[in-house]
Amino acid sequence: MPDPALLETFESPSQQSFYIEHVHEEFTSVCPITGHPDFGRVILRYEPAELCIELKSLKLYYQSFRNEGAFYEAVTNRIRDDLRDCMKPSWMEVTTEWKGRGGIRSTITATAGEEM
Amino acid sequence: MPDPALLETFESPSQQSFYIEHVHEEFTSVCPITGHPDFGRVILRYEPAELCIELKSLKLYYQSFRNEGAFYEAVTNRIRDDLRDCMKPSWMEVTTEWKGRGGIRSTITATAGEEM
Amino acid sequence: MPDPALLETFESPSQQSFYIEHVHEEFTSVCPITGHPDFGRVILRYEPAELCIELKSLKLYYQSFRNEGAFYEAVTNRIRDDLRDCMKPSWMEVTTEWKGRGGIRSTITATAGEEM
Amino acid sequence: MPDPALLETFESPSQQSFYIEHVHEEFTSVCPITGHPDFGRVILRYEPAELCIELKSLKLYYQSFRNEGAFYEAVTNRIRDDLRDCMKPSWMEVTTEWKGRGGIRSTITATAGEEM
Amino acid sequence: MPDPALLETFESPSQQSFYIEHVHEEFTSVCPITGHPDFGRVILRYEPAELCIELKSLKLYYQSFRNEGAFYEAVTNRIRDDLRDCMKPSWMEVTTEWKGRGGIRSTITATAGEEM
Amino acid sequence: MPDPALLETFESPSQQSFYIEHVHEEFTSVCPITGHPDFGRVILRYEPAELCIELKSLKLYYQSFRNEGAFYEAVTNRIRDDLRDCMKPSWMEVTTEWKGRGGIRSTITATAGEEM
Amino acid sequence: MPDPALLETFESPSQQSFYIEHVHEEFTSVCPITGHPDFGRVILRYEPAELCIELKSLKLYYQSFRNEGAFYEAVTNRIRDDLRDCMKPSWMEVTTEWKGRGGIRSTITATAGEEM
Amino acid sequence: MPDPALLETFESPSQQSFYIEHVHEEFTSVCPITGHPDFGRVILRYEPAELCIELKSLKLYYQSFRNEGAFYEAVTNRIRDDLRDCMKPSWMEVTTEWKGRGGIRSTITATAGEEM
Amino acid sequence: MPDPALLETFESPSQQSFYIEHVHEEFTSVCPITGHPDFGRVILRYEPAELCIELKSLKLYYQSFRNEGAFYEAVTNRIRDDLRDCMKPSWMEVTTEWKGRGGIRSTITATAGEEM
Amino acid sequence: MPDPALLETFESPSQQSFYIEHVHEEFTSVCPITGHPDFGRVILRYEPAELCIELKSLKLYYQSFRNEGAFYEAVTNRIRDDLRDCMKPSWMEVTTEWKGRGGIRSTITATAGEEM
Repeated sequence: MPDPALLETFESPSQQSFYIEHVHEEFTSVCPITGHPDFGRVILRYEPAELCIELKSLKLYYQSFRNEGAFYEAVTNRIRDDLRDCMKPSWMEVTTEWKGRGGIRSTITATAGEEM
Repeated sequence: MPDPALLETFESPSQQSFYIEHVHEEFTSVCPITGHPDFGRVILRYEPAELCIELKSLKLYYQSFRNEGAFYEAVTNRIRDDLRDCMKPSWMEVTTEWKGRGGIRSTITATAGEEM
Repeated sequence: MPDPALLETFESPSQQSFYIEHVHEEFTSVCPITGHPDFGRVILRYEPAELCIELKSLKLYYQSFRNEGAFYEAVTNRIRDDLRDCMKPSWMEVTTEWKGRGGIRSTITATAGEEM
Repeated sequence: MPDPALLETFESPSQQSFYIEHVHEEFTSVCPITGHPDFGRVILRYEPAELCIELKSLKLYYQSFRNEGAFYEAVTNRIRDDLRDCMKPSWMEVTTEWKGRGGIRSTITATAGEEM
Repeated sequence: MPDPALLETFESPSQQSFYIEHVHEEFTSVCPITGHPDFGRVILRYEPAELCIELKSLKLYYQSFRNEGAFYEAVTNRIRDDLRDCMKPSWMEVTTEWKGRGGIRSTITATAGEEM
Repeated sequence: MPDPALLETFESPSQQSFYIEHVHEEFTSVCPITGHPDFGRVILRYEPAELCIELKSLKLYYQSFRNEGAFYEAVTNRIRDDLRDCMKPSWMEVTTEWKGRGGIRSTITATAGEEM
Repeated sequence: MPDPALLETFESPSQQSFYIEHVHEEFTSVCPITGHPDFGRVILRYEPAELCIELKSLKLYYQSFRNEGAFYEAVTNRIRDDLRDCMKPSWMEVTTEWKGRGGIRSTITATAGEEM
Repeated sequence: MPDPALLETFESPSQQSFYIEHVHEEFTSVCPITGHPDFGRVILRYEPAELCIELKSLKLYYQSFRNEGAFYEAVTNRIRDDLRDCMKPSWMEVTTEWKGRGGIRSTITATAGEEM
Repeated sequence: MPDPALLETFESPSQQSFYIEHVHEEFTSVCPITGHPDFGRVILRYEPAELCIELKSLKLYYQSFRNEGAFYEAVTNRIRDDLRDCMKPSWMEVTTEWKGRGGIRSTITATAGEEM
Repeated sequence: MPDPALLETFESPSQQSFYIEHVHEEFTSVCPITGHPDFGRVILRYEPAELCIELKSLKLYYQSFRNEGAFYEAVTNRIRDDLRDCMKPSWMEVTTEWKGRGGIRSTITATAGEEM
C-alpha cells in the first residue's frame, strides 16, 4: 500500500528560486472496481523551499502503489498530499497520465501552493 | 439517440481544486444532410465541484450518439449542456475534433463556467 | 474568380459562446507574376455571433480561387473580408500557410473583431 | 557581401492590421574565425505598416550573405536593421536558427517595434 | 573539475535588446552516490547586456564537468552562477534535461535577472 | 449486413502490370460477444487483371459492415473473398488494423493469388 | 505465476492462409535479481492452422506474469512455448520489447515453425 | 491537357549505371465524374540509359494535367507511357499518391523495364 | 581502458534458435586526434549459441571505453571481437551510431558468423 | 572547384568485412543554368578494402564544391568517381538528396563495386 515513509529529502543546493521536474514513466496501480491493472506516468514539478526529493526514494514510493486499488482521481490527490507534507515546497504540481480504459485516456492534475 | 440518463457520477476525493481530462478517440455520429457517418474524438476537461464523472458511464453516453444525425456544432453544444447539468463542475470545456468531410477538418470548442 | 455569393450560413445552435475551427488542406491559386500555381492550406477560426458557415459552401468558395492570380497577402485579406461580411462573427481569424516558392515558406494571418 | 539595395517592397493590400511570416530554410554564411561555412534558417515575422517585402528580392538579399564572414549575433542584427530600414513595419522579429558548430545549436532573435 | 576560467566573452554587436539560445546536446557528469555517468543536455538562453559568450569556450567549460560528481540540482545552479558572474546578462535561464536514472527523467531550471 | 452487390468495377486502363492501394481509415463493425463497436482501417492492395474497383462503391461496401457482429479474423476473410470474387485480380492483399480492445491492438492480413 | 490454462481458442474462419498480429502494450513482470518491476510490450504474430487465440484469454494469460521473477530471455521463450502448445499454428513469432534497465533497451524474438 | 511535347532531356553524365528520383508534391487534376479537383504527389524513379529528364520541363508537363479529367489509374499509366517514350530509360517507376476522396487514400504504381 | 574481463554470461534458457537485441544510448569515448569526447549509441544483435550476455556487465564494459582514445572504426571492431570471444554466438552484429563531428554523422557495422 | 587531392585515408583497423556510413547534411553547390545556390546532403556508404576515408578531409572535399556550377546528376557521379579512385573500396554507394527546386525534390544514387 502507498507508503509516504519511503520518501527521503536532501537540502536544496541554492537559496535562489529554481524549478525541478521528475517524470516517472512506469506507474501502475489497480482498478478498484474490476481488479485489472492500470498503467500510467506521473509528472512531478516543484519549486523547492528548503528540501529536494531524493530520486531513488521517490521511485520506491511510486512502486508502493503497485497493488493499491484506487480511482485515478484519488491516486493523484494522494500523491500530491504525501509529497507536499514531506517537502513543503514553495509550489508543486502532480500530473498523472493514464493509458486508456474503455477507449478513454485520462489525465489528472493537482497542485499545492502558488507558482511564482 | 443521445441519452444523458446514462451518465453517472461519484463524489470528488478532494476538497482542494484539481483538474481532470478524459479523451475519447472513437466518437461517431451521422451527417444530418447526407446520412454518411462522421468520426472524431471528444476531449473533456473539467475542474470538479462536488462530483466526478464515472468513466464507463461516459463511454456509454458517447456511444448513444452513434445513430444521431446532427451538425458538428450541435453535437458539441449538446455534450456540454448534458455534462454541465449532470456534474455542475466549477469549470468545463468540451472539444470535438472531426476527421475531414470534403477535405476540411473541423474542431469545435464549448465551455461552461470560468477557469480559475 | 473568388465568389463570396457561394457562401451559405445556418443559425448557431447555441446562445452561449463557443469556438469553431475549419482547416482546408488543398487551397490553390496562381502567382500573379509568373502564372505558376501556388498551393497552401487555409485555417479559419471563429466565434459565431448568430450565424455559422456551412461546410460545403465554404469548400466551393475556396475552390473559386483556383484560377485567381493574387499575392499571398491579398488572398488572405480577401478571405477575411468575404467571411466577415457573410457571417458577422464575434471574432474571426484567417491563416494561410503556403508551400515554398523560391525556398521560402510563408504564413499570413488576418483577424476581425476581438477574441474574448 | 550583404546588399540591402536588393530588397524591394510593394504596397500592403489592406489598411487593417495583419501578420506575415516568411521562413527561409537555406541560409549560409562563413565563420569569421575558421572560414568554414555556417548553415541555418531565417524566420522573418512582421506586421506591415504601409509596405510588404517582395519575396524574390528577399531571397536574393539572403543569398548575398553567402561568402560573408560574420558571427551569428552580428548576422541577425544586420538583417533586422536592413529590413527595418527598408519596410518600416509596425513590428518585426528576425530569428536565425543555426546548425550545430562544436556540438552546440544556436538560435538568435532580434526585434524592432512593439507587437500589438 | 568545473572551471569557469575557461569561459570567454566578446562585445555584443548591438545596443538594442536581443535574445540568444545555445543548446548543448552532449553534457556528462558523474552521480556523486554511485559513480555512474549521467548524460543530458544544457539549454542556455540569455539577453546580453554588454557581453556575449564565445561558443568554443562554452563547450570547453561544459566538458570540464566530465568527471565531476554532483547532483542534478547542484550542477544546474553551478552553471547558472558561473555564467552570470562571467557575462552579467540582462536576463539568463539555464535548463538541464537528464536522461533517466531508475526510470525517472529529470529537468532542472534556474534563472538570473528578469526577462523583459 | 455486408453486401457485395454494392461493389462496382471499371475496365483497367492499361494492359501492362501495375499496382493499386486504397486505404480506408474509418471502418467500423460490432463485437459479436459484447455488442460494443470496433474501429479500424482497411488497406486494400491489388494488381488488376481486367477490372479495377470503383472507389465510391468500395466505400459503400465498407459501410455495409457498420452493424455487423463479427470477429476481426472473419471480417478480414469476408472482405478478401468478396473483392476477389468481384474483381478477379492477378494478386490481392487485404489488411485490417484495429484499435485496441482490452489493451491489445490487432492486425489481420489475408491474400489471394501470387504477387509477381 | 504464468498460467497457460487461461488460454482459449476458437476455430479459424478460413481454410486459406492468413496472418494475425496482436500487440499488447502493458506487459509487466519482475526482475529476478533486484525484485524491481520490468515493463514492456509483447508482439504476437502467427499464421493459424486450425485454431485462433481468443483475445480476452490472451490478455489474462499475459497478466498472469505480473508477479513472476524471470529474465527477459526466459519470459520470451516461455510465451512462445505456451502459445505454440495451445494453438499449434503453421508459424508463430513472439517479440518482447523492454523499457530500459540501466540505460539499455532490449528486444527478444523467438519463433516456432517456418513462415511460408 | 497533358502535353508530352513539353518534356525535354539532356545527355546522361555517366556511362555507368546510376539512379534518379524526382518527387513532385503538388500534382492536381480533376475527377472525371464530379468535376472536383484531386490533389496528390508524383514520385518518378528511373535508371537512365542515354538520356536524363530536365527538371523544369518535367514540372511544366505535370502542370499540364491541371484541368484534365481522368481516373487515378489512367493518370498514372499516362505519365508512365509519356516518360518512357521520351527518355527510353533502362528502368522506370511512376507512383502517384492521392489525398483522400470519400475517406479513402489511394496510391497507384506503374513500371517500365526491369530494375537491375 | 576497454576491459573485456568485465563481461559476464549466463546459460541460454532455450535450445531453440532465438534473437536478442540490446540498445545502449549513452556510449562515450574520446577522439584520438583532438582529445574531444565523442558520443553515440551501440546496438548489439545476436543469436545465442549456449551463452547470453548479462545486461549489467555489458553496461560496465561499455563504460570502460569512457576515457579511451580511438577511431569510430576501431571501437566498433574492438567491441565485435570482445563480445564474440566472450559469448561465441551463432551470429552477432555490432552497430555504432555517432553524433556528428564536423557536420558529419557516422554509422559503423561489424558482424561475426552467419545469420540463419 | 572540386579538389580530390584534399581526400586523405588511413589503414582499415580490421581484416574482416565491415560497413561504414558518413552522412553530411550541409552540401551546397550552384545551379549551372541560373547561378542560384543548391542545397542538399550527401550519404556515403562503403565496405573498406584496405583504406578508410579520414572524416575531416572528407568534409573539406565536400566544401570544395561550394562555388561549383553542376547538375545534380554530374555532382553525384563526380563524388563517386573521386572517392572510388582514392579508397578503392570493396563496395561503395553515394546518394545525394537535394532540397526542392521548382517544387520537385530529387535524389541521385551511384555505386561502385558489388555489395557482398
